[in-house]
Amino acid sequence: MASETGAGPSTALLTDHYELTMLGSALADGTGDRRCVFEVFARRLPDGRRYGVVAGTARVLEAIADFRFAEAELAQLRSTAVVDDATLSWLADYTFSGDIEGYPEGELYFPGSPILTVRGTFAEAVILETLVLSILNHDSAIASAAARMSGAANGRPIIEMGGRRTHEYAAVAAARAAYLAGFATTSNLEAGRRYGISTRGTVAHAFMLLHDDEEQAFRAQIAKMGTDTTLLVDTYDISAGIDTAVRVAGTELGAIRIDSGDVGPLARRAREQLDRLGAKDTRIVVSGDLDEHAIAALRAEPVDAYGVGTSVVTGSGAPTAGMVYKLVDVEGRPVEKRSTHKESRGGHKSAFRRHRETGTAVEEVICPASRVPELGEHDRALQIPLVRGGQVTGELPTLEDSRRLLRRGLVSLPWEGLKLSHGEPAIPTVFASGEKA
Amino acid sequence: MASETGAGPSTALLTDHYELTMLGSALADGTGDRRCVFEVFARRLPDGRRYGVVAGTARVLEAIADFRFAEAELAQLRSTAVVDDATLSWLADYTFSGDIEGYPEGELYFPGSPILTVRGTFAEAVILETLVLSILNHDSAIASAAARMSGAANGRPIIEMGGRRTHEYAAVAAARAAYLAGFATTSNLEAGRRYGISTRGTVAHAFMLLHDDEEQAFRAQIAKMGTDTTLLVDTYDISAGIDTAVRVAGTELGAIRIDSGDVGPLARRAREQLDRLGAKDTRIVVSGDLDEHAIAALRAEPVDAYGVGTSVVTGSGAPTAGMVYKLVDVEGRPVEKRSTHKESRGGHKSAFRRHRETGTAVEEVICPASRVPELGEHDRALQIPLVRGGQVTGELPTLEDSRRLLRRGLVSLPWEGLKLSHGEPAIPTVFASGEKA
Repeated sequence: MASETGAGPSTALLTDHYELTMLGSALADGTGDRRCVFEVFARRLPDGRRYGVVAGTARVLEAIADFRFAEAELAQLRSTAVVDDATLSWLADYTFSGDIEGYPEGELYFPGSPILTVRGTFAEAVILETLVLSILNHDSAIASAAARMSGAANGRPIIEMGGRRTHEYAAVAAARAAYLAGFATTSNLEAGRRYGISTRGTVAHAFMLLHDDEEQAFRAQIAKMGTDTTLLVDTYDISAGIDTAVRVAGTELGAIRIDSGDVGPLARRAREQLDRLGAKDTRIVVSGDLDEHAIAALRAEPVDAYGVGTSVVTGSGAPTAGMVYKLVDVEGRPVEKRSTHKESRGGHKSAFRRHRETGTAVEEVICPASRVPELGEHDRALQIPLVRGGQVTGELPTLEDSRRLLRRGLVSLPWEGLKLSHGEPAIPTVFASGEKA
Repeated sequence: MASETGAGPSTALLTDHYELTMLGSALADGTGDRRCVFEVFARRLPDGRRYGVVAGTARVLEAIADFRFAEAELAQLRSTAVVDDATLSWLADYTFSGDIEGYPEGELYFPGSPILTVRGTFAEAVILETLVLSILNHDSAIASAAARMSGAANGRPIIEMGGRRTHEYAAVAAARAAYLAGFATTSNLEAGRRYGISTRGTVAHAFMLLHDDEEQAFRAQIAKMGTDTTLLVDTYDISAGIDTAVRVAGTELGAIRIDSGDVGPLARRAREQLDRLGAKDTRIVVSGDLDEHAIAALRAEPVDAYGVGTSVVTGSGAPTAGMVYKLVDVEGRPVEKRSTHKESRGGHKSAFRRHRETGTAVEEVICPASRVPELGEHDRALQIPLVRGGQVTGELPTLEDSRRLLRRGLVSLPWEGLKLSHGEPAIPTVFASGEKA
């Protein structure tokens, strides 16, 4: 892959031992040179979910560019005898030279959707399995949950603030995936640096408790951040807190935040109180264990913005997307596992989505890549070229492009596909044979 | 903190925006210099869990040593106007100079246990909140799940192989936490490098499908890895696969792996077949969607080792430990939030565990740090000093120490505390006042 993009630390050991032992054996018996196609897909959506959202592809491409075995990585493999010297030599020269295509980030996916297709020799493609899956499984799980929350918020902004509930680097990727799926901002500063996402934050309860009383804390905050800030009013007594907030900040106060309790009734009472005090434009931000269902339940309440933490960074009950990376073709021959359940469909595949004239999606069609039919006026091809001969092709979608793509995709679903309740996938997956997934 | 340990990339932006805005305000009004105590604890265990396992503390201390604002971090904060110039200057000189004590890794914890106590000025301690919580919440969630699986495996080894189901760096920390909690090995090569954990792996189904038939694949693997390897027998037909495996490898074959299907009956049939073929010492490894309940259900089956992936890296239903970082004391004055529920108990605390003469744990006692009673013969203090004046104190427990500590801790629980079913915490938390948590 283009080395100019490979600026980060090596990702080469973020992988499983068995990929290198497979590599060693395949190099030794010559099968490592066989041309192979690996396909990433999810056999099913998380229990009851109606759609998934692809996220992480750009991170995958960066990670592949940084997948190199320098002396530090080779020394580790040598000292632990994971592979032999011939394999170490091969790894020292490693660079991915194959082709990759896939669903763009922000695209919806369904069971069997070929989300990413990696083509190259067995040797060069097999060792990417774990890294590719780690990124896509994590980021897509977060984006899929976040999209449901964004839908439930129905246009009201959501700030992602779950970094403290997940691994410190997963937090950064989660902020990116949540933004991709419609969140407005994040609390995570590293996500701001890496991805240019707008960051937000004011104070925690610690700041309130640090001061001698609530009024002093409010005054200190306003002195620094101005009256357009958000005052945290639930440290002592919410009603008294709102009185103090408006007395200190005036009716120009930007917002109050309520982080605990039964936020629906609390927001209603807060709204009445703010209006009575003349702070009619002061917004109400609520946070504290919100998930998509809690957000939906607050739709009728006078809430202006949500802060969401734990539920989004843990995928709201589905912390991994369950995608697999399967060998589907060897030298033009479709291959598939055949023992018990968990079978894969062999063969290199392509995919398109059929829509009604109205624009409503009808089905996800998966067909052999060599036999893609001519697409109709309302069909849409789903894969885009990502890498050709080891080089990233052209411009990848930006985060803003992905946000737009996702919005359009969600609008195209049959209405029941947007329900938060448990159900079937919003559209069926149809394989070229006509068989349903 | 000791800069010689701060060899990694800066961790300073792995934090929330609001910590820096609080810092800015507190520096401006002088409250940033107030001596504070922050405490990390979990208000409750994940639903139905009977104990938690502390993990991540050593990673926290490393991350704090790398928490520094170099030009790159300052430039980001300057360009996004998160803080003013005075705060930027303060951050440029930042180094944590306070004290930290906490539960050692591998220690059990219960609701309210003061797992980590950070003491210093408000300014220097408040900005560590997110980083400390991210690490402890992630690593402890994994270790808590892994300990249940280790218990269910009842001495049989478990290999951690879930890296592909979680964020690529969370995978490395998860392998460490699982090992700490009793897993035997990991598939994750980076965990091998960073933490010296023994890594394992042979082949995936892709290796089988790459070859023209199963026998060729087995021969290639044995040629490279010897007959003591593990052959994957469920690609086509398990019974035929075992026949081929023993024909190719001989009765000295190390192990077979079954990765799909109803592994209990399959293992039983495989054992009979292997014995009939004379491969009486060939071990049986099973994997594929195993969690603690599935492992427990396999206790009576002839299984020699387990491979566990998704369930352990996602905390088996509890992907985050839900710990919080709360300000509990300002200049010797206990502080606590008091509005609705979610109250914290104010004050700097210490903790010890009472046991019966038999060694069985009776209760977790949490008392004011300034009023720790003289401990009885069967009491055990739970916190150890970790940092004094910014310097890591002496030797931290090794991973092996933590494994031993956890084993002893689990043995000390009342028998019902080890049940996998939903229940109450294994022992009650008692606060100094005598009030129960």
